[in-house]
Amino acid sequence: MPETLDDIMTRTSELLTDRDMAALSTLMAELSTTDAVRVLERVDSSRRAVLFRLLPKDEAVAVFERFDATVRGELFESLRSYDVIALFEELDPDDRVELLDELPSNVAHRLLVGLSPDERALTAPMLGYDRRSVGRRMSPEFVRLRTAATAGDALDAVRRTGSNAESVYLLPITDDHRTLLGVVTLADLATAAPSTPVGDLSSDHPVVEADSSAEEAARLCFEHRSPAVVVDSEQRLIGILTLEQSARILEEAEDEDAARAGGSEPLRRPYLSTPVLAIVRSRVVWLLVLALSAILTVQVLEIFEHALAAVVTLALFIPLLTGTGGNTGSQAATTVTRALALGDVRPRDIAAVLFREVRVGATMGAMLGTLGFVIAGLVYDWHLGVVIGTTLLSICTLAATVGGAMPLIAKKIGVDPAVFSTPFISTFCDATGLIVYFLIAKAVLGV
Amino acid sequence: MPETLDDIMTRTSELLTDRDMAALSTLMAELSTTDAVRVLERVDSSRRAVLFRLLPKDEAVAVFERFDATVRGELFESLRSYDVIALFEELDPDDRVELLDELPSNVAHRLLVGLSPDERALTAPMLGYDRRSVGRRMSPEFVRLRTAATAGDALDAVRRTGSNAESVYLLPITDDHRTLLGVVTLADLATAAPSTPVGDLSSDHPVVEADSSAEEAARLCFEHRSPAVVVDSEQRLIGILTLEQSARILEEAEDEDAARAGGSEPLRRPYLSTPVLAIVRSRVVWLLVLALSAILTVQVLEIFEHALAAVVTLALFIPLLTGTGGNTGSQAATTVTRALALGDVRPRDIAAVLFREVRVGATMGAMLGTLGFVIAGLVYDWHLGVVIGTTLLSICTLAATVGGAMPLIAKKIGVDPAVFSTPFISTFCDATGLIVYFLIAKAVLGV
Repeated sequence: MPETLDDIMTRTSELLTDRDMAALSTLMAELSTTDAVRVLERVDSSRRAVLFRLLPKDEAVAVFERFDATVRGELFESLRSYDVIALFEELDPDDRVELLDELPSNVAHRLLVGLSPDERALTAPMLGYDRRSVGRRMSPEFVRLRTAATAGDALDAVRRTGSNAESVYLLPITDDHRTLLGVVTLADLATAAPSTPVGDLSSDHPVVEADSSAEEAARLCFEHRSPAVVVDSEQRLIGILTLEQSARILEEAEDEDAARAGGSEPLRRPYLSTPVLAIVRSRVVWLLVLALSAILTVQVLEIFEHALAAVVTLALFIPLLTGTGGNTGSQAATTVTRALALGDVRPRDIAAVLFREVRVGATMGAMLGTLGFVIAGLVYDWHLGVVIGTTLLSICTLAATVGGAMPLIAKKIGVDPAVFSTPFISTFCDATGLIVYFLIAKAVLGV
Repeated sequence: MPETLDDIMTRTSELLTDRDMAALSTLMAELSTTDAVRVLERVDSSRRAVLFRLLPKDEAVAVFERFDATVRGELFESLRSYDVIALFEELDPDDRVELLDELPSNVAHRLLVGLSPDERALTAPMLGYDRRSVGRRMSPEFVRLRTAATAGDALDAVRRTGSNAESVYLLPITDDHRTLLGVVTLADLATAAPSTPVGDLSSDHPVVEADSSAEEAARLCFEHRSPAVVVDSEQRLIGILTLEQSARILEEAEDEDAARAGGSEPLRRPYLSTPVLAIVRSRVVWLLVLALSAILTVQVLEIFEHALAAVVTLALFIPLLTGTGGNTGSQAATTVTRALALGDVRPRDIAAVLFREVRVGATMGAMLGTLGFVIAGLVYDWHLGVVIGTTLLSICTLAATVGGAMPLIAKKIGVDPAVFSTPFISTFCDATGLIVYFLIAKAVLGV
C-alpha cells in the first residue's frame, strides 16, 4: 500500500505537468477514498484544487469530509464559487459547522445564506453552541422512533428515511414533544423478532447536553463503546454524537495533548504539507516563554556565584541534577495528566495524588541518591558524595510531588493540564533544584 | 455524575463494613455498567471480588469486559474457580485471549481445556498469532453472507444468527471457500430495498491480514471510520476488527506513547488503585538510564573545567542553554512522532523532514540568538553576548534536526519512536550543547 501511494504521487505529478486532464480524471476516479485523501493532502494547494475538481461528485464529498480542518479551509478558498456552493450544500451539518470556523466570517456568512432552507435550519442552531461543545459536533439528522412502534416498524422507518441520516446505528425513542424516552441500536432491531415493541429493546446509552464539553462527551462514548444521544437544556432530543465523530474529537484532543506535552501547538494539518513558517509559529512562542523563564536559573546561579568560584567542581553536576529533576517531574506529570484525561483521577483527589507521589519520589530519590553518593564519593570525595546524594533525594521527592500536583491545579483553574507537563515542570524543577543543590553544598562543604 | 460516584463509593464502603449483602446486592444491580466499572476499579482487590460476585450475571460479563487488563487478571485470580470457569465461557473470544495473557500459564492452560468445544475452537487459533497482531484482537464470530443473497435474506440471517456475533455492523460476503468477495454494512442493508442483491451494496472497506500489527490496523479502521475485515495469509476470511476493539487498541497505544514520552512505562490500570511500588517500577528504570547517561554531561564539563574556572560566569548559562536545546529537540521529536503515528510521515521521508527541521531550527535559533545576544550583551559584556547568541543559534538548529531525525531512525530500526522523544533527546542535546557552548566560548573569549 505505501509503495502504491508513491507510484500514484509520481504518476499524478507527471500527468499534471503534461496537463493530461483526461488521464488524470481516470486516475482520480480509480483511487480509493483513503488514497485520494492522502494524495490531495500531500500536494500543494493549487494542485490540490485542480485534482479535487476531477474527483467524481460523491467521492469529492467523502474525500473532503476526511481532510484535516486547515486543509478544508484552504481548499475551499481556492475552489471556484460555483463548486463551493454545491459542495457546501452536500456536506453533513457537523462537517459544515466545522468548516465555517476555518473560513473568514464574510465568506462563512455568504455560504450560510446560500444554503437551501432545510439545510440551513439544521445548521444554524448548531452555530449557537460553543466551539468546544457537543452542540457543534453532533449530527442533527437521525431517525426518531415512537414508543408504540415495533422492531419491524422501526426497520421500515430506517428503510424509508435512513439514507438522509448521517448514522442509523443509534435510534432515539421520543414522545411528541421530543422528550427522550429511550434508545435502541440498529443491531438490536435487526436481531429482534419484528413484533417486539421498541421500548423492550431500549438499552442504557450515554446522554449528553449540547453545551457540555465535546472532548468529555467523546470519552464517555468510548467508555460506553456507543454513540451518545444529545439533548438541549430542557432534555429534548436534538442530535446524536456518533462514534466516528467521537473518534475525530479524541484524535484532535490527542494531537493537542501530544503537541503541548512537547512544548508546541498542534499543526492541524499533515506535517509534510505544513509550511516551515507555520511550524515555527506553532513552536516559537512556547520556546520563548520557556527560555525567558529559564533566565530564572541564571539568576539563581548568580546568587551562588561565589560558591561556584570556590568549588568549580560543583558546576560539573548542574546538568545532571537539573535533568534528573526535570525527568522525575515530567514522569509524574505525564502519568497524572493521562489519568485526568481518562477520568481515573479528579482535581479533588489531590491529597491522594500528593501522598502517592511523595512516596514514589522519595523511593526513587533514595535509590538514585545512594548511587550518586557512591559514585561521586569514589570519583571525587565523600563530602561531595553526601552533597550529590542528598540533593538527588530532595530533588526527586520535590519534583515528583510538584509534577503530580501541577496537572490537577491546572485542571482546577481551567488550563490545559498537558501544558503544565514536560516543559513547565522542567523549568520549575531546574530553578528549585539549583537552590536546593547550593544550599546543601554550602552547608556540607562550608563554602 | 462525579458527585453520584462519590456517594456510591461511600454507600458501598458502609454496606461492606456492615456486611449487609442484601442491600449491597440491590445497589450493585441498580448501577449502570459504567458506574459499576468505576466503583470496582477503585476498591481494593479483595473487596472487588466480593462486589463482583454480587453483580447480576449478564452485567458481570459486561463489566468484566470493560476493566483494564491488569484489573481483569487480578480479579480472575481472586474469584472462586467455579465462577471463573463460568465467566470465562461467557467472554467474547477476543476478551478471552487478552485475559489469557495476564494469567500464569498453568491457569491459562487449565481454563482453555475447560472451555466448551465450540468456544475453544474459536479461541485456540487466535492464540497462534503474535501478541501485538490483529489475529489476537479480532472477533472470530460474525455473520457471513453469500453472493446470491438479497438484502432481505441478509437481514433474515442477521435476525437468526446475529445475536451470537460480537458485532453485526459489518457483514462479509464470501464464496464457499471463505474467500472474501465484498463487504456490506448493516446500515446499507437496512436502508436498501429488500430485493437488492448484497453484491450491489458492497462497499470499500479496509482488509487486513491477521498477522499484521494491531495498532496499524486500528489506525486504518479509524482513518476509514469503519471496522476492518481480517483474512489469513491465503486471503480467507477469519474475523472482523470492530471499531470498538480498534478504539481499545488505540487507547492502549496512546497510553504507552504518553507514558514513554514522559519517560515511564504505562501503568495498565487506574492510577489511584496502582500500588506505590508498581508506579516506582514503571519509572525507575528510565530514570536510572537517563541519570547514568547524564554522567556524560559531567565528563564533558570536566574537559572544560579550566575554562569554567577562568570565567565562572559561563556556568550561569548552563541550565538555560541545555534547557533550550532540550525543549527545541523535544518539540521536533513530538511533532514527527505524532506524524509517524498518523501515517503522515514515513521513515523514507527522512530527507524531507531533515530539510524542514534544519530551517525551522535555524529560524527559531536566529530569533532566540538575537535576543540572547542583546540581553547577555547589555547585562554582562558584548563578547559574552556573542557567545550566548551563537550558541543558541547552533543549539536550536542542531536540536531541531536531531529531534526530527530520531523518531524516524527509531521506526526504521524497529524501536518505539515515542521512547526517543523528550527524555533521550534532552540527554543528547545536553551533552552536545555543552560541547558547542564551550568550543564557541574558547574561540571568542580565548580561555
